[in-house]
Amino acid sequence: MTELAPWRSALSRALHRNRSLVYARYAQLATVQANRPANRTVVFRGFLEDSNTLKFVTDRRSQKVGEIADNPWGALCWYFPKTREQFRISGKLMVVTTTEENSDLLHLREMAWLALSEGARSQFAWPHPGQPKSESEKVSQESIAPTTPLEEFCLLLLPPQEVDHLELKGQPHQRCSYTLEADDTWKQQTLNP
Amino acid sequence: MTELAPWRSALSRALHRNRSLVYARYAQLATVQANRPANRTVVFRGFLEDSNTLKFVTDRRSQKVGEIADNPWGALCWYFPKTREQFRISGKLMVVTTTEENSDLLHLREMAWLALSEGARSQFAWPHPGQPKSESEKVSQESIAPTTPLEEFCLLLLPPQEVDHLELKGQPHQRCSYTLEADDTWKQQTLNP
Repeated sequence: MTELAPWRSALSRALHRNRSLVYARYAQLATVQANRPANRTVVFRGFLEDSNTLKFVTDRRSQKVGEIADNPWGALCWYFPKTREQFRISGKLMVVTTTEENSDLLHLREMAWLALSEGARSQFAWPHPGQPKSESEKVSQESIAPTTPLEEFCLLLLPPQEVDHLELKGQPHQRCSYTLEADDTWKQQTLNP
Repeated sequence: MTELAPWRSALSRALHRNRSLVYARYAQLATVQANRPANRTVVFRGFLEDSNTLKFVTDRRSQKVGEIADNPWGALCWYFPKTREQFRISGKLMVVTTTEENSDLLHLREMAWLALSEGARSQFAWPHPGQPKSESEKVSQESIAPTTPLEEFCLLLLPPQEVDHLELKGQPHQRCSYTLEADDTWKQQTLNP
């Protein structure tokens, strides 16, 4: 079992104190595509059990899956409105698809599918995201059986290597960085905001 | 005078409908540094007059200023909680510093400084952001005269080249992309969400 990273308690506290806002679980994930940044909102789906890895889900047909295949680095920026604090979390993203060979990861993908709401599941049966909309192509309104994940469904994992925590409440602001060292320990440093 | 881009009305509507939330004016700006993404929250400071260019401010000592010098591409992700919609805006960022040679831009930098609150101005007199915190270095609590911008103060401009608007209210979601063409007109296309 991985030890909880030292930034986990601050992030748990932020999640707890902002729990009345649904969108406090939304964050922005940046990737690199052909030397340009791309950035989109993702929904935090909790941590992998016994680990510091953040879970998200995505559609295999979405642009970010191709981007991550070319360059796995991701930078999550997570702002908590109520407590006025920001976490910047970066690491190498992993996409777990239906063809995943690691059976543990494949199982985690199934668990993530089961945890989705019916509405969220049905989106994976929609036409190809990001493609021009065609009037002839119907959006399925059928409910999707929760048993087996649709092929397009992917689990997206972010194992953090660097975390930057900025607190804007009070003057001056507080800022702390956490870096994962080669020996798997976290180095913590207080920075100027 | 530049014509208002076709996405401007949708963005104005979002700003208006979310105006009760201070943080609806916060968005996440991604850049590229050494082939890795970086991502942070920025505060929208309005549009440049008679243009579609978004204004932000930044500290010359912040990491993003160096990143933008190496690679000007920026990707802003802006989520509006109340109306559940997202704008993704990308273009080449411009940093207007105290050594700017274009007098119009230099004037805009001064105007942006004047528009800041006293608290926001004082942050540009704080110790070097992102550097290890030193106990001996004091954070100035002096109020900063609004007349002349501090050297560290920069105006940050984002002239959009691509805009992607996603509306999550209702099923299915609505998505529309806008691309600036070589002849300075905007091409608009409805996409699958």
